[in-house]
Amino acid sequence: MAPVDSVEMALSRAFATITGPTTPPRLRAAMRHAIFPAGARVRPRLAVAVASACAGHDSARALAVAVPLELVHCASLVHDDLPCFDNAPLRRGRPSVQAKYGESLAVLVGDALISSAFEVLGRACAEDPVLLPTIPMLATAVGARTGLVAGQAWEAEPHPDLASYHRAKTGALFEAAVCMGAVAGGGRPSAWTELGTTIGAAYQLADDILDLTASSSERGKPVGQDLLLGRPSAILELGIEGAYAAFQGAVARIPELVPVAPGSTRFRAWLAAALGRVFSPVHASASSVRVDATLSA
Amino acid sequence: MAPVDSVEMALSRAFATITGPTTPPRLRAAMRHAIFPAGARVRPRLAVAVASACAGHDSARALAVAVPLELVHCASLVHDDLPCFDNAPLRRGRPSVQAKYGESLAVLVGDALISSAFEVLGRACAEDPVLLPTIPMLATAVGARTGLVAGQAWEAEPHPDLASYHRAKTGALFEAAVCMGAVAGGGRPSAWTELGTTIGAAYQLADDILDLTASSSERGKPVGQDLLLGRPSAILELGIEGAYAAFQGAVARIPELVPVAPGSTRFRAWLAAALGRVFSPVHASASSVRVDATLSA
Repeated sequence: MAPVDSVEMALSRAFATITGPTTPPRLRAAMRHAIFPAGARVRPRLAVAVASACAGHDSARALAVAVPLELVHCASLVHDDLPCFDNAPLRRGRPSVQAKYGESLAVLVGDALISSAFEVLGRACAEDPVLLPTIPMLATAVGARTGLVAGQAWEAEPHPDLASYHRAKTGALFEAAVCMGAVAGGGRPSAWTELGTTIGAAYQLADDILDLTASSSERGKPVGQDLLLGRPSAILELGIEGAYAAFQGAVARIPELVPVAPGSTRFRAWLAAALGRVFSPVHASASSVRVDATLSA
Repeated sequence: MAPVDSVEMALSRAFATITGPTTPPRLRAAMRHAIFPAGARVRPRLAVAVASACAGHDSARALAVAVPLELVHCASLVHDDLPCFDNAPLRRGRPSVQAKYGESLAVLVGDALISSAFEVLGRACAEDPVLLPTIPMLATAVGARTGLVAGQAWEAEPHPDLASYHRAKTGALFEAAVCMGAVAGGGRPSAWTELGTTIGAAYQLADDILDLTASSSERGKPVGQDLLLGRPSAILELGIEGAYAAFQGAVARIPELVPVAPGSTRFRAWLAAALGRVFSPVHASASSVRVDATLSA
């Protein structure tokens, strides 16, 4: 399995191709700020891990699909932080792109990263047509039917369906990560879809819970935003205990959904460790809320 | 050569695939508003015409590259009209997307159209790998090096170079249109690049001139914006007479830049008619300015 550094190195190489000496300097600085330094890189690492699981060894193709996944993820964060959405001053513990470079450049950074994702992937497909099915996969994860854009747009509807909203806003890119990883590793993408959906669901439930229970410094971004902005949230729909239960249900299903593959044992161990790190604040906050509930009972 | 209706029909078919029953209804309405009814469709029609010129007959592949070109063009108009850029209330003689649907949906419509353009093109490439080189061509025309995004970002720099700004903001998509059309028609893209660059230059000079000389109702969008928003403009750099001279120079070079191709005679006639329609308001306003200059001399 490729270590995390190979993802970072691939992102650095990609940055050097999607920008250049003719890129306006402030745009280039804002794009760099949007991509580096690393967030958790969960989606590209997941794609690399799935590719290795399918191939039974490291897949050289995996990084070609990992980079575009992270670029569209960064694009979605930059646009989500815009004044017309979350108006967030912080991201990854630093000023957001819109706070540091202004709204106009934040719009352009997002546009550039979406386009760059397809440029990187398109060039990879031209060299290696095996990867061609990953272009519609990535586009579906971004787009207006069931992708990130659809997810964000549900917030503008009077009665959004929470499951559709969450699946589009968070699940779609996890589904793309596992499916694109499967293509890169020579596996069967459809065998991996439900794993991606379920990781996405757990991730979104964790996000909803931590938005209520964590501090801004723990999260590196503003908290309490769902209630403040009137967004659909598992907390509002299920209550905090219900949201925990749903989160734990999703987390419990994840290992069962790993398909049979040459490297699935190693993949399962990797996934448990990776998600353990990501989800540990939720488990910690779950116990503290249970203590609160017991004390106040 | 495919008539304009085939471009409209292809755009309608594409709209039905990039949106669907799961698309949030307001997002879908806003995307429709961004694409229909037709603008001049200059870029997709140019791509179709170049493909036919290269092939010597109608190219079935041409529409596959024409649609994504128009989708990214529509995306750029929607984002240009945002409050943080032009804050334009009008586009194509109707309320702009941001005026009618609000800023948030306008951001999302642009994102969806960029992603959809690559989805449509990616699916076409999967069926017909001959088209694969067109993905980086389109991405270059959108991106942060020399594309639309770079062009718009030059406005955020203290001392933008007018030629780089114009070439990126307008020329890049015309270059992509001719080069992608050449690929679709089996021609040599590099033979067509300079024609695209020069059509783009004439187009941008026309835009700068009409921003000063035409009325808002003639243009279907606000006028006087370059001076109002302090944007780099050929008028500011060259004066109105200098901008006319540059425009006429570019227009005069266009026919000479059409490469030898099986259908180049028919293409030349088509191009003269198409650009004649687009540029006639500039020629008309040129005579009126000359009359004004003579009267005031």
